[in-house]
Amino acid sequence: MSAAVKKDAHPFNKQNLEALLNSRFFYAPAFEIYGGVAGLYDYGPPGSSLQANIINEWRKHYIIEEGMLEVDTTILTPAPVFETSGHVARFADWMVKDKVNGEVLRADHLVEGVLEARLKGDKEAHGILADAAAAPEGEKKKKKKNVKSTAVKLEDSLVQEYESVLAQIDNYTGPQLGELIRKYNIVSPDTGNEVDEPVQFNLMFDSSIGPTGKQKGYLRPETAQGHFLNFSRLLQFNNGRLPFASAQIGRSFRNEISPRAGLLRVREFTMAEIEHYVDPLDKKHARFDEIQDIKLMLLPKDVQSAGRTDLLEISVGDAVSKGIIDNETLGYFLGRTYLFLVKIGINPHRLRFRQHMANEMAHYAADCWDAEIETSYGWIECVGCADRSAYDLTVHSKRTGQALVAQVTLPEPIVEEKVVFELNKKNFGKTFAKETEQVKNAITALDQDGLLKLQGDLKNGSAIINAEGKDYTLTPELLTIEWKTFKSHTREFTPNVIEPSFGIGRILYSVLEHSFWAREEDVARGVLSLPPNVAPTKCLIVPLSSNESFVPLVRDVSAKLRKAGVFSRVDDSNASIGKRYSRNDELGTPFGVTLDFASVQNGTMTLRERDTTDQRIGKIDDVIAVVQDLVQGTIDWPQACERLPAYDGVQAVAE
Amino acid sequence: MSAAVKKDAHPFNKQNLEALLNSRFFYAPAFEIYGGVAGLYDYGPPGSSLQANIINEWRKHYIIEEGMLEVDTTILTPAPVFETSGHVARFADWMVKDKVNGEVLRADHLVEGVLEARLKGDKEAHGILADAAAAPEGEKKKKKKNVKSTAVKLEDSLVQEYESVLAQIDNYTGPQLGELIRKYNIVSPDTGNEVDEPVQFNLMFDSSIGPTGKQKGYLRPETAQGHFLNFSRLLQFNNGRLPFASAQIGRSFRNEISPRAGLLRVREFTMAEIEHYVDPLDKKHARFDEIQDIKLMLLPKDVQSAGRTDLLEISVGDAVSKGIIDNETLGYFLGRTYLFLVKIGINPHRLRFRQHMANEMAHYAADCWDAEIETSYGWIECVGCADRSAYDLTVHSKRTGQALVAQVTLPEPIVEEKVVFELNKKNFGKTFAKETEQVKNAITALDQDGLLKLQGDLKNGSAIINAEGKDYTLTPELLTIEWKTFKSHTREFTPNVIEPSFGIGRILYSVLEHSFWAREEDVARGVLSLPPNVAPTKCLIVPLSSNESFVPLVRDVSAKLRKAGVFSRVDDSNASIGKRYSRNDELGTPFGVTLDFASVQNGTMTLRERDTTDQRIGKIDDVIAVVQDLVQGTIDWPQACERLPAYDGVQAVAE
Repeated sequence: MSAAVKKDAHPFNKQNLEALLNSRFFYAPAFEIYGGVAGLYDYGPPGSSLQANIINEWRKHYIIEEGMLEVDTTILTPAPVFETSGHVARFADWMVKDKVNGEVLRADHLVEGVLEARLKGDKEAHGILADAAAAPEGEKKKKKKNVKSTAVKLEDSLVQEYESVLAQIDNYTGPQLGELIRKYNIVSPDTGNEVDEPVQFNLMFDSSIGPTGKQKGYLRPETAQGHFLNFSRLLQFNNGRLPFASAQIGRSFRNEISPRAGLLRVREFTMAEIEHYVDPLDKKHARFDEIQDIKLMLLPKDVQSAGRTDLLEISVGDAVSKGIIDNETLGYFLGRTYLFLVKIGINPHRLRFRQHMANEMAHYAADCWDAEIETSYGWIECVGCADRSAYDLTVHSKRTGQALVAQVTLPEPIVEEKVVFELNKKNFGKTFAKETEQVKNAITALDQDGLLKLQGDLKNGSAIINAEGKDYTLTPELLTIEWKTFKSHTREFTPNVIEPSFGIGRILYSVLEHSFWAREEDVARGVLSLPPNVAPTKCLIVPLSSNESFVPLVRDVSAKLRKAGVFSRVDDSNASIGKRYSRNDELGTPFGVTLDFASVQNGTMTLRERDTTDQRIGKIDDVIAVVQDLVQGTIDWPQACERLPAYDGVQAVAE
Repeated sequence: MSAAVKKDAHPFNKQNLEALLNSRFFYAPAFEIYGGVAGLYDYGPPGSSLQANIINEWRKHYIIEEGMLEVDTTILTPAPVFETSGHVARFADWMVKDKVNGEVLRADHLVEGVLEARLKGDKEAHGILADAAAAPEGEKKKKKKNVKSTAVKLEDSLVQEYESVLAQIDNYTGPQLGELIRKYNIVSPDTGNEVDEPVQFNLMFDSSIGPTGKQKGYLRPETAQGHFLNFSRLLQFNNGRLPFASAQIGRSFRNEISPRAGLLRVREFTMAEIEHYVDPLDKKHARFDEIQDIKLMLLPKDVQSAGRTDLLEISVGDAVSKGIIDNETLGYFLGRTYLFLVKIGINPHRLRFRQHMANEMAHYAADCWDAEIETSYGWIECVGCADRSAYDLTVHSKRTGQALVAQVTLPEPIVEEKVVFELNKKNFGKTFAKETEQVKNAITALDQDGLLKLQGDLKNGSAIINAEGKDYTLTPELLTIEWKTFKSHTREFTPNVIEPSFGIGRILYSVLEHSFWAREEDVARGVLSLPPNVAPTKCLIVPLSSNESFVPLVRDVSAKLRKAGVFSRVDDSNASIGKRYSRNDELGTPFGVTLDFASVQNGTMTLRERDTTDQRIGKIDDVIAVVQDLVQGTIDWPQACERLPAYDGVQAVAE
């Protein structure tokens, strides 16, 4: 076996990775030949395949493993749905306009970018930052405008102020951002011009449904509402039982103000969302014991509010029992999210869970944690995990008049004594005539205390009730009020929703960054060490020559690999073997089999592993069996080496 | 073994199928609790799973089997792309307005619906159509408005006219539809009001990209343009070689005027599209021999133009050699489409390929065939297969100035003699000064004959050339004109595109209709005989009792099936075994295993097949191995019966 592979011989080089992703067509700016549109990207063959494989792993990890109910709902959505959900009023970012050229900037990104550049300039002036490209730039997400720094020293107190502002940057309202802009004299970094006060810009794309132009619609900015609107059908499908989860993988759209940072901030993206419906009185999770010992790096809200970013390493079980994470179900999904991300190639040491701060969290949310992945852009939110309480089902139910509730059978029926009224309908109708309904409504509106008081007054002969501003006299001939016993066997409630929501494009980009390195002997030879489960192609088939005797062999090996469920590609181009292998190292192809003249004569082929470049040899069927096991993850490379001898590069071939 | 299953004991009943699809939540109107929006549907768990399985089979059948290059491109598209493709000007339907209430109707559907209703009324008046519900309604697609018929006799000549109009309904322009409306006194069937002249309505949804409101965009109505714009990158990915194909599965949008007919005409839908790039001089296909013997039912254009609909049964090979199908590649994809549709459950006797007529086909297309599937709505276009020639790449190249071409190395270099000119730059510039460029352009614009004439004139001393309306005198001191030899080793050309384009929702609905039947003994017991490869769930696990001793067994069988790649679900509800099985017959689950007390004691379980309701018994691991083979399609049910003995419903269980 080869020695261990040294993957950190060269520092991470973003330009090299970007060049690789572009030249191998993982993805590219959409409409590039038309000049492109900011925030829109097309995936090429390896990118599409990587994305499909990540989605497939997600489907296995969540939908199949946990028996979730998959849905596929509509992107185009009529306006009333998003009026109800609050998106029409509140799904907006604060933007500022350059006072001179009218260019539009996102207010929080402007503040963040300018203050970070000033801090960086301060470090440069102190001679701290020697190699700006190699150093990770601070703890925060770098979603803001990329601002060039100038080496200018700052007062120590100002450095502290800036750092505190940056730690809370997601916590400011629009007017507060406006104050910061004035206080710190922040101007547009491109033009040096002043900017206007922040104004809100709604991030939903709108359109018009049908030929009349009268039915307004939006492209959904998340898939969640499609789950909620189908809640009753899903509950019925699940035989009326809670808890259960719906899951959906689909496209969503956000009209970002000025998208940058590649796949990390785009206008059209694929999400995978889970809505897990639970009894608000019971947020325990049946499989919590399976993940409670997983240790996570947490960044709780109180740490951030104090302007700090230090992480707490703690098991999920302890975090829930100490109340850091609100409940078991939320903790369960954080643990499962950790397992999923690590399985598809995220470095666990560059993964943290950040809790939302008060202003950042939706007003209805009980608790919210983002899985953030560290990349060269800083810490990036890739998965949001929110306890949305009963908010969504409640507002849709109110607006539509449809009950969106669940029922549980009580172990013991609840017995309750209640004061209730009964009208003597005939007398009541005769007495109040046209005003019957409003008097009845006034009585119905009374609570228990109100009814008790009315009962007392009636015992004394008569009572007065006010209905729509007018007093009416009630007498014992019109109604009776009594205590009655009620027994209920079920409890009805609006379920709470725990929502893990995955941004597939961000995760995909992070996997690529975490997988990228350069060969020790040649920095230009990039490798993507993608795990076999997500690698676009699992096995490369390389015929040594274009000799005709290879054709049936290549077809045979292809068919056998296909039958073994191993997705392979043939590279029969004229390039040298070495060149074909390094092209596939760039594509992240973990294994390669080479067919040479010995294969034709002896029925053997060689197997190459991408990271080590180690080569083994064996009978064609044996090699295929090993590749199948490697791809399915039942064995690793050292185990494969026990089954196949090393290849010394020389084989006897009869002339 | 049981006797053969009688699936046609009861006539197809659409109401029963619709009730089943709704109650089992295959799909449902989107935003139903908000009153719904026409043409928008959500898929529930079985529908999502069926759709995912159809897409998965498509991916295996095309992308993996044929090594296609998958792409995933953007839905939101800037306006210039669709201006170039012609969609902004021409992607429209003709609509008419009710003159009184302003309701909008599609003109062709109005004509089609009214004339068909009159023909039906004529038949009723002649006592021909006894049971209107049971009889399939004519040969044509029933996409038009559902118009109630009245029993009124028609003149024989008028019947012939109507039939001829209906056979060509896709062939009329807007003004021609207007004429038909006036000629046959067609009014709105809902109101009896007259309608206005047909006007065009563009079917693309539009929106605005970015915060300025100045960048207009559309939601793509097909995925094709995303392939074409990436042509150069894809060609490079394929090492510059032709032919190759790109493939994409994704959402598209069409703002239909008045969508009806369930999943068959919707405003948002999933497509799977292939763009196969070929040398226009060579449309042969390397694997044509694999499909040339497949027999298809064809409806060629000349038959339709003659007002008839009779089908021609012919092999793909013969249809291509006789010139009925334009070329091998187009024929190859028709054959492969046939195989795909039959594999996922389409009845081959209800599948035909209809050629587009002249007016119906895009002006640039060389040939176009639709795979049409017969359903209770008539013959439905589910796959379009068009030879788009070089149109798309040519127009995008012209608009953007980017070359979208391929090159082939010639077996023999082409040697050509050409007359060319060479300027004496110094003299030329001195003579024409500021007008140099325009005189040069005039010479460049000359063809070979023009240059030869110029050469002759120059030999005689001087020549006159006209540039931008002015004559200039040329002399031998200014330029020389000579014959030269050119040798070229490559040929450059704009590839032609063959496009098979699949409407996944329409195919999915057709599969459901073709799979649906009712048990002979009870018409209310519906069954969906979905093939195992697309069935939402492959195997149902039914524990006979909720006894605790079953819990580990159920978990064990679930895990083993999951490991065998068989997607299963447990039904541990309180319903009876019979009820649980029939619920799963409605969901199309092909197999069910039952765990009873004998399973706990003897380690056996029973296996039930959906269509026959036949039951077998065996050791748990043996049954799982049989289910795995059945689901993978390596054995059929009679072969399974050879491996597992029949279950007589009685087993010895120790008390």
